[in-house]
Amino acid sequence: MSGENETNGAERLCDSLIAQGVDTCFANPGTSEMHFVGALDRRPEMRCVLGLFEGVVTGAADGYARMADKPAATLLHTGPGLANGLANLHNAKRARTPLINVVGDHATYHLKYEAPLASDIDSLARPMSNWLGRASHPDKVAAQAAEAWQAAVSTPGVATLVLPADIAWGRAEPGPIVPLERIAPKRPDEGRVRAVAREMEKPGRTVLLIGGRAVREGPLALIAAIAEKTGADFVAETFNARIERGAGRVPVAKLPYPVDDAVAHLAGAERLVLIDARPPVGFFAYPDKPSLLHDPAASLHGLVEADEDLGEALALLAEFLGVEARRADAGAAPAVARPEAADLPRGPLDAQATCAIVAALLPENAIVCDESVSAGGTFFPASHVSPRHDYLQITGGSIGIGLPLGAGAAVACPDRRVVCLQADGSAMYTIQALWTQARERLDVTTVILSNRRYAILEHEMRNVGIRDYGENARRMLRFDDPALDWLALARGHGVEAARAETGAALADLLRTANSRKGPFLIEAVI
Amino acid sequence: MSGENETNGAERLCDSLIAQGVDTCFANPGTSEMHFVGALDRRPEMRCVLGLFEGVVTGAADGYARMADKPAATLLHTGPGLANGLANLHNAKRARTPLINVVGDHATYHLKYEAPLASDIDSLARPMSNWLGRASHPDKVAAQAAEAWQAAVSTPGVATLVLPADIAWGRAEPGPIVPLERIAPKRPDEGRVRAVAREMEKPGRTVLLIGGRAVREGPLALIAAIAEKTGADFVAETFNARIERGAGRVPVAKLPYPVDDAVAHLAGAERLVLIDARPPVGFFAYPDKPSLLHDPAASLHGLVEADEDLGEALALLAEFLGVEARRADAGAAPAVARPEAADLPRGPLDAQATCAIVAALLPENAIVCDESVSAGGTFFPASHVSPRHDYLQITGGSIGIGLPLGAGAAVACPDRRVVCLQADGSAMYTIQALWTQARERLDVTTVILSNRRYAILEHEMRNVGIRDYGENARRMLRFDDPALDWLALARGHGVEAARAETGAALADLLRTANSRKGPFLIEAVI
Repeated sequence: MSGENETNGAERLCDSLIAQGVDTCFANPGTSEMHFVGALDRRPEMRCVLGLFEGVVTGAADGYARMADKPAATLLHTGPGLANGLANLHNAKRARTPLINVVGDHATYHLKYEAPLASDIDSLARPMSNWLGRASHPDKVAAQAAEAWQAAVSTPGVATLVLPADIAWGRAEPGPIVPLERIAPKRPDEGRVRAVAREMEKPGRTVLLIGGRAVREGPLALIAAIAEKTGADFVAETFNARIERGAGRVPVAKLPYPVDDAVAHLAGAERLVLIDARPPVGFFAYPDKPSLLHDPAASLHGLVEADEDLGEALALLAEFLGVEARRADAGAAPAVARPEAADLPRGPLDAQATCAIVAALLPENAIVCDESVSAGGTFFPASHVSPRHDYLQITGGSIGIGLPLGAGAAVACPDRRVVCLQADGSAMYTIQALWTQARERLDVTTVILSNRRYAILEHEMRNVGIRDYGENARRMLRFDDPALDWLALARGHGVEAARAETGAALADLLRTANSRKGPFLIEAVI
Repeated sequence: MSGENETNGAERLCDSLIAQGVDTCFANPGTSEMHFVGALDRRPEMRCVLGLFEGVVTGAADGYARMADKPAATLLHTGPGLANGLANLHNAKRARTPLINVVGDHATYHLKYEAPLASDIDSLARPMSNWLGRASHPDKVAAQAAEAWQAAVSTPGVATLVLPADIAWGRAEPGPIVPLERIAPKRPDEGRVRAVAREMEKPGRTVLLIGGRAVREGPLALIAAIAEKTGADFVAETFNARIERGAGRVPVAKLPYPVDDAVAHLAGAERLVLIDARPPVGFFAYPDKPSLLHDPAASLHGLVEADEDLGEALALLAEFLGVEARRADAGAAPAVARPEAADLPRGPLDAQATCAIVAALLPENAIVCDESVSAGGTFFPASHVSPRHDYLQITGGSIGIGLPLGAGAAVACPDRRVVCLQADGSAMYTIQALWTQARERLDVTTVILSNRRYAILEHEMRNVGIRDYGENARRMLRFDDPALDWLALARGHGVEAARAETGAALADLLRTANSRKGPFLIEAVI
């Protein structure tokens, strides 16, 4: 079917993705995608990475794009395959990650028979997609793939292209592929930026709430300079796609997760300037706690729209406020010596000791994937002075992202070490990511914070006023009977592993793990 | 909150489910469901079964209901938690399994802020739900839960009730719970049944295609008697929720999965009578193969609508055809001696030998969960003469149901042995079900057909004409590098396991596994 002048829809789709610079496809294929698999097979320049579960596929595509700053494709099998990937697509959408899903479907003429695997793919895809399309003809699929790419990188966000089997196998006209360009961000509204500057010059406390593209190194430095000049505070959103941080960079705090702490953090602020951030809102509602985290009397001012150029907006704001460009590194972290190995906790582990040790031993230029949930809260402040690193978080609250995110980041950055700080309960949702780490020989160190319970839910039970509870509740909040054997789980997926019960053991294991090739898992028993 | 005259929406929901006879809840809770967890905790008569991933929860609820013939509840956390459970809900919907999902959502007043975990739950739920509702007031939630139950058992199918957090925690008026009744099936249309009888008396081959409720013991016996009297053939649909079979029962063949084989099976039939079955359609479409499996000239005749009484319809048909009631056991399998242990294959294993051995050593009154995909095709014919057993299949093609299905069936039938015949690739989608088997000490024997590849996809590549393929395709179709270590995977989840590479070893392990308490996993290396 790939004779000199013969091609099909699947090949046109594949060629179009390649023409747009997409060279990585995370995949879990099924029968309806065999022609697309065949097309990928004839394009060795496309790296295909298999996940044994679709949540691995989508989470890895998210991690890849956060680090590569360009989208990967996914290959998913009909509605249920997409459904398995939706939880991490939810995180990707919230992270504004560019990502292109190719979802195979039945042949168009077969749909009306409602074969057993048929389902309403559009209804499933829509909530977690910024763009949704359906390939309609073998001759059009190249253009439709380019549109999906354009939407993914320009929004940026999740684009989902449904590929019916007969469009994939249908004969297509050969011919040149016409790539599309990213839609350039607009110039920011100068009047709006000037109004924000005027607001900031008024008396009273200003908090700059920053997120999205604003927590990368360059924007952060400028924001710190603006804050220093104006006396404003700045704080990042609670969950961030990628913060560039560590020694020599501006340290930025995150708005606390607990509602009371976040309200306290923003108390007294007369105005919030939102820099690529959304109005601060509680992750959940609780009886007798507010939904909004800022003072009801405070005013909110957006600096920049999602489709505007953030760098230009910040430069304008700096100009209007008289911030000198050469001061742009004013807020950078001083070269603080990291704790000596001798100062690290050596005795029995707890969550705080684990975080301190992981932060202290972070390798140069690491990528941290943080899905530590309740146990990892002290890692972030402990790692302000760690070597330069990227810090990737769960963004949409859909647990089970950490291990896939780490795999995808490692695929994007083969010369850097990935360190996953991973809660045990959350790890179980996409545990199959360990196999992809082994298959691709990815340089990932996973530290499992092993407390054998959904500690966040035990906390939340108290939070909603339920203090005494019995067997039924305990059996839904703890998984200590039986305890998961993390060394066996890792080995089962082809990943070497070891257990640390003391700080000394954890430090030893981390030094080894972080300097070797390939994945390694450490169970930190806390 | 549960003082003498105080109650809340969550407790009303829980009490309503209990009043309807629902006493099992498969759960993976999150923060927005803490009040429901609290309510369950105060109702020890509700058995709560934790799954570490939502696909386990929904698949187990499916297995439970297929065996208990009544629904369990599930507890799922917001849109992403539901999304993780959708693949197996798809199977449940296709199996027409009664099932009640309780999906927690944000408090109603919090939704408008689009907190990070907010998503369009209705859009996600609709494709895999037969009934969808949203709890609207603490005083109404008991009635709404009863409605969900009624829909689940009457359709039968999947009912999804979204429970916003403030409806759960909101104070409700105490008072009696008013249960609803199942909507009784209608009397079948006598004229339609008579017309079917007349058709069957005409010359030419008739095939009775049977499914749903018709593959249980009683209907099967009557169908066999009707077939014997009229000379018609009968065959079950390819995928069935629950076939009652084994020694002393009517053996029924299944319509083959491959399109060509299915077409051959139905070739020459001038008419098909659909008995709780759907028109036969290919699982997938293929280039140059038909979508419909029967002869285009054949006529199709439905015997019974989904909301009609199947038993009455069959009795009427028998009456019209002059089939004597006492002949109803005419087609029962003769008491064929099973193969002696000495006759079983003892050498290196392959798929066929594994199936033969599992069938030969099936314990009395077992429940077989078959997700063997490509490797298990010979199990079904080999087990016609096995002791009486129930045979549960994947129904919607959404792989990853086998291990959860087995867990749920074992919860429903604690005095029976469950035997899961499980493909390795499919097992990985919901591998966490092993932990639930261990936690609940379920009597499940899992036989992993370990061939380290998606063999069905290798076959499908050939099916669509792709014979020679290279590294990219191979890396998406095989997972032999690294090979999964099944013994470690099982132990990691708290399940004992052993490996069999010969028939003799498999037989020894099966005898031990099937006679012990609790779960055991056998890797059959094929």
